[in-house]
Amino acid sequence: MAIHSLTPTPDQYSYVFGGVDPLLSVKPGDLIEVSTEDCYGGRVHSPDERPSEVVPFSELNPVSGPIEVEGAEVGDVLAVHFVSIVPARAHAISSTFPHFGALTPTHETAMISGALEERVWFYDIDLESWTATFRARRSDYEVSLPLDPMHGTVGVAPASGESRLVVTPSTHGGNMDTPEARAGTTLYLPVNVPGAMLSLGDGHARQGEGEVCGTGLESAMNSVIAVDVVKGGALAWPRLENDDYIMSTGSIRPLEDAYRISQADLVSWASDLTGMDTLDAYQLVSQLGLAPAANVCDPNYTMVAKLPKWSLKSAEAYGGVHRRLRSAAEEYARR
Amino acid sequence: MAIHSLTPTPDQYSYVFGGVDPLLSVKPGDLIEVSTEDCYGGRVHSPDERPSEVVPFSELNPVSGPIEVEGAEVGDVLAVHFVSIVPARAHAISSTFPHFGALTPTHETAMISGALEERVWFYDIDLESWTATFRARRSDYEVSLPLDPMHGTVGVAPASGESRLVVTPSTHGGNMDTPEARAGTTLYLPVNVPGAMLSLGDGHARQGEGEVCGTGLESAMNSVIAVDVVKGGALAWPRLENDDYIMSTGSIRPLEDAYRISQADLVSWASDLTGMDTLDAYQLVSQLGLAPAANVCDPNYTMVAKLPKWSLKSAEAYGGVHRRLRSAAEEYARR
Amino acid sequence: MAIHSLTPTPDQYSYVFGGVDPLLSVKPGDLIEVSTEDCYGGRVHSPDERPSEVVPFSELNPVSGPIEVEGAEVGDVLAVHFVSIVPARAHAISSTFPHFGALTPTHETAMISGALEERVWFYDIDLESWTATFRARRSDYEVSLPLDPMHGTVGVAPASGESRLVVTPSTHGGNMDTPEARAGTTLYLPVNVPGAMLSLGDGHARQGEGEVCGTGLESAMNSVIAVDVVKGGALAWPRLENDDYIMSTGSIRPLEDAYRISQADLVSWASDLTGMDTLDAYQLVSQLGLAPAANVCDPNYTMVAKLPKWSLKSAEAYGGVHRRLRSAAEEYARR
Amino acid sequence: MAIHSLTPTPDQYSYVFGGVDPLLSVKPGDLIEVSTEDCYGGRVHSPDERPSEVVPFSELNPVSGPIEVEGAEVGDVLAVHFVSIVPARAHAISSTFPHFGALTPTHETAMISGALEERVWFYDIDLESWTATFRARRSDYEVSLPLDPMHGTVGVAPASGESRLVVTPSTHGGNMDTPEARAGTTLYLPVNVPGAMLSLGDGHARQGEGEVCGTGLESAMNSVIAVDVVKGGALAWPRLENDDYIMSTGSIRPLEDAYRISQADLVSWASDLTGMDTLDAYQLVSQLGLAPAANVCDPNYTMVAKLPKWSLKSAEAYGGVHRRLRSAAEEYARR
Repeated sequence: MAIHSLTPTPDQYSYVFGGVDPLLSVKPGDLIEVSTEDCYGGRVHSPDERPSEVVPFSELNPVSGPIEVEGAEVGDVLAVHFVSIVPARAHAISSTFPHFGALTPTHETAMISGALEERVWFYDIDLESWTATFRARRSDYEVSLPLDPMHGTVGVAPASGESRLVVTPSTHGGNMDTPEARAGTTLYLPVNVPGAMLSLGDGHARQGEGEVCGTGLESAMNSVIAVDVVKGGALAWPRLENDDYIMSTGSIRPLEDAYRISQADLVSWASDLTGMDTLDAYQLVSQLGLAPAANVCDPNYTMVAKLPKWSLKSAEAYGGVHRRLRSAAEEYARR
Repeated sequence: MAIHSLTPTPDQYSYVFGGVDPLLSVKPGDLIEVSTEDCYGGRVHSPDERPSEVVPFSELNPVSGPIEVEGAEVGDVLAVHFVSIVPARAHAISSTFPHFGALTPTHETAMISGALEERVWFYDIDLESWTATFRARRSDYEVSLPLDPMHGTVGVAPASGESRLVVTPSTHGGNMDTPEARAGTTLYLPVNVPGAMLSLGDGHARQGEGEVCGTGLESAMNSVIAVDVVKGGALAWPRLENDDYIMSTGSIRPLEDAYRISQADLVSWASDLTGMDTLDAYQLVSQLGLAPAANVCDPNYTMVAKLPKWSLKSAEAYGGVHRRLRSAAEEYARR
Repeated sequence: MAIHSLTPTPDQYSYVFGGVDPLLSVKPGDLIEVSTEDCYGGRVHSPDERPSEVVPFSELNPVSGPIEVEGAEVGDVLAVHFVSIVPARAHAISSTFPHFGALTPTHETAMISGALEERVWFYDIDLESWTATFRARRSDYEVSLPLDPMHGTVGVAPASGESRLVVTPSTHGGNMDTPEARAGTTLYLPVNVPGAMLSLGDGHARQGEGEVCGTGLESAMNSVIAVDVVKGGALAWPRLENDDYIMSTGSIRPLEDAYRISQADLVSWASDLTGMDTLDAYQLVSQLGLAPAANVCDPNYTMVAKLPKWSLKSAEAYGGVHRRLRSAAEEYARR
Repeated sequence: MAIHSLTPTPDQYSYVFGGVDPLLSVKPGDLIEVSTEDCYGGRVHSPDERPSEVVPFSELNPVSGPIEVEGAEVGDVLAVHFVSIVPARAHAISSTFPHFGALTPTHETAMISGALEERVWFYDIDLESWTATFRARRSDYEVSLPLDPMHGTVGVAPASGESRLVVTPSTHGGNMDTPEARAGTTLYLPVNVPGAMLSLGDGHARQGEGEVCGTGLESAMNSVIAVDVVKGGALAWPRLENDDYIMSTGSIRPLEDAYRISQADLVSWASDLTGMDTLDAYQLVSQLGLAPAANVCDPNYTMVAKLPKWSLKSAEAYGGVHRRLRSAAEEYARR
């Protein structure tokens, strides 16, 4: 088990997927200890600062990478297993933005009415109790929330020579902002260029479904990931797997089209794994599927479609790569 | 504890909310044992029949009611607690329709390409093991699913003199098709006319989130509900409460607007219950909220927004009516 | 040529389509001189009043009718020809509303950010020069606009026993708010109940496409219409015809679904009229069709799809009823 | 008046906006005679071929360029005037695609029902009569359509280091597919990188509004454009101007958000040109504006918002650059 380390210097962060030279090259099966910055680039130091003033728009959401995975070829599937995701600082930060989030006019849902107040919350992170403390800004309300760390942004170089801003999730992954991208989960991404060119960032100490205000508990992270390559099996959209569920995603607007993409993909995946025809698989997904929102605030919205693995009986996705990466993660933890 | 019974004769079912004379009149605090027909009006007797041929469109989704709740006045909140929901027949039925469901052209998402095959599935219902058995129609795949009975359609007479088809959920409730409407849950509906005029039907032995194919495990039900009235507190959209969550809903298209309505309503509710201002409540909901799809197939789509009650500390919604109805349900069960 | 007159008293206006007793009964081929009130119910008397304060929500947009058309049976098509539409007062009124219009949060696109300022504009109407004068409220800008009078709301009783608020356009017509509903145009509506039960109102002295702020030049109108019945030919959605175009409409959200409905209907109509198959008609509509927005502010949005009649050669819609009603209109004008 | 010529060789076409080296460098005020290939890359030679089989997806819609405009700096506005657009071949081609167009399931509006038949139409182009002849494929219907040539795809390098596929319109322009991009019109694009890096292609001999089937009369073109640079005045979205209208665009999903963007931008532009405040400008646009669909088939949909220039009185956009380029075009024509 080769273990790499990636700790980018400030000037090494990148802000697009695609067209960026790799910072690190690894082999399928390797583990990487990677540190990521928060979505504000670490520039917000107090709840009295305004993120929109201290962080230029084009420098929001820095990602660590790209990581080149040797042998990954166009048409393969890149498996990224989240071994651990641990907040790196004593506080996480959340904020509203004047023109970002689901409940205010934005650049995409343009209006001429006034925008939202920009307000910042600092949460104390306590790794011991595994909690973050929320404190209201205009009253005394205070409550401790369980940590549930995840990466909002994980993706590869897009197909067809595109370079996409880190904030826009699409077929290459990116800023999907799903709480499902937590430790213990494997994310499947399409390989669109040789080496795949994986980058990740935008850690959240926790996040509600939909990320309605536009930010989670934004947190620099010390994470460990394991990567592998599944030959062939070209993916249309990112998928996830944990011990209990297979999951499909779709990232587009309007939200029903994100739902459609994720559900159609899950139907197709269930059909492949069970041998049922499309309509029978559609029926099973209709009755057993879960459909949580991931984000309803980014330039593309993301829906997740989940099917419990017990309904698939003995079928295993991608030759059991999730199970093998899970074992590697346990081995890493035992060292 | 007064216990009423409502078993409509075939000609007593109704197909609109609003403008219908009540079948029963009850008092706040009463329980009603009510039987409901399946969405096919009980007319599909074999998986080889085509629902679109044996059920006229205007007779889909019959509801039992209206039930007049004495003393309910315009501007009040009607609380409907689901005491128990039990499948009434040995099988539940699901089907695709040529122009219904999220993954086929419909009358609303009109296309000129071909529609989906109409296929019917019969599930064996086993109340003993509390399961329904799924059998693929074109292969041998078979799997047992846990029952999770719910009512897809529960609503009251709309405001402003409207009468709405039972299939279209809106501010008056109706065909929201959320799996959250299960036993143990209280549904809050606005009172738009004197007596509220509650109707319900469309039982599902279980249903996935989004009801992607357009139908759940459609099942006639023997249900028990308890009703109460909260004076004042005018609701904009239906809300739900169970022992763990408060929940808001929104029913409209596109799906992001259903999400927006449900989230904005939950923010407002959380603000009312905690005394926090809107932006602080927005922040809490953003980090703790769940956002599952209810239906993405009906003429209006429904999203649900959920907040765990522990985050509200000692605050109780609507003066604890859920807790009291829960007790009444337990008393009923102990008889 | 029988000529009727309908001038409702204030208490005779109605606010829903469906379930209302007729004010007048006419025969196919008859003309009706009808007066309609403005969308504010005539209650706004100065630009310094706030419509939201002087008009209760449920009394916005009064319509004149229903007019029962004898012999109209379920499944027929009602043809409504606009003979003339003339502003009845010396001024027309427009306004923003805090939660209405495309560029502010609304009850449907719910947000927690602030709503728009409510502002009122009075336009001087000059029938001589056929203009309305716009005057900015916060500067000296002033410009005369040509009148182009139309009815925003024209519809019949809905199918299946529904009653719908006048503000929501759907398959029964209603508040489509298309500038195409001007004098010289024939509107085709489905007959859903015996007698059709036609109502109209919401005159605009003119209106931009999309009615982006939520109101046109709202104006009481003295209008003349001619009605006829085409036996059979059941319509799915309202259609229009003038001397140059056939036009289909769709009213739903999101706007692309309104576009899809209107385009699919126009393809079907063009196929019927030319004998081409669906794909060939699709091709013709794709290259010649116009697609203006009607409204993007009401509870359902409306798109119009237009095809020039020269491309249909000698084919005539509905047996030439538009041509015949046009002649009757000319005869009326010559009296 | 410097006149350049750009006739790319087959390997010189590009398929993304951004990150491509220029083929030509010109100065503000220069004219360019440019030839463009059709969206099929010239590979469809008969109505019996299937475009999806003879053209790889990543080679659809080649563009000619980039053209570097010297002195164009980030934050400037690039003015592109269409002097003339003339079909280069004796036929134009249109087709359906199985998963493209507004009335069939697509990769974005994913469904599991069957896709559309792929059918191809060849139109005879007659420059003398300025017509294209449509012939139905499954019947004898035939009709001549007036030519109205335009470029569907015109754009510059995107901001923030993005490279975008040519098929996706956004803030940088691209595949907006509006019939307004015809000779006599000036298109304004934001300058996001030094030199702007203008590319164009996707000529249509004509196209309906919305391009509902996904293609216009696809045609290689011999075009002449004139370019100029307006210093400062940073544009959020592409705008257009002809002798009669100023026009704003928005390209996004859902279609109402494209409408919102285009209308909000037009309100802002009208406010700038007349000195009215935002709400007064909103009122004027609401009553005078036109709102045709451009495309409802590409990965982002495009709406256009138009305001007649007479309503702006003497105000001239961008210091009269349209008028000056119009004069240069006339001078070119007189040579």
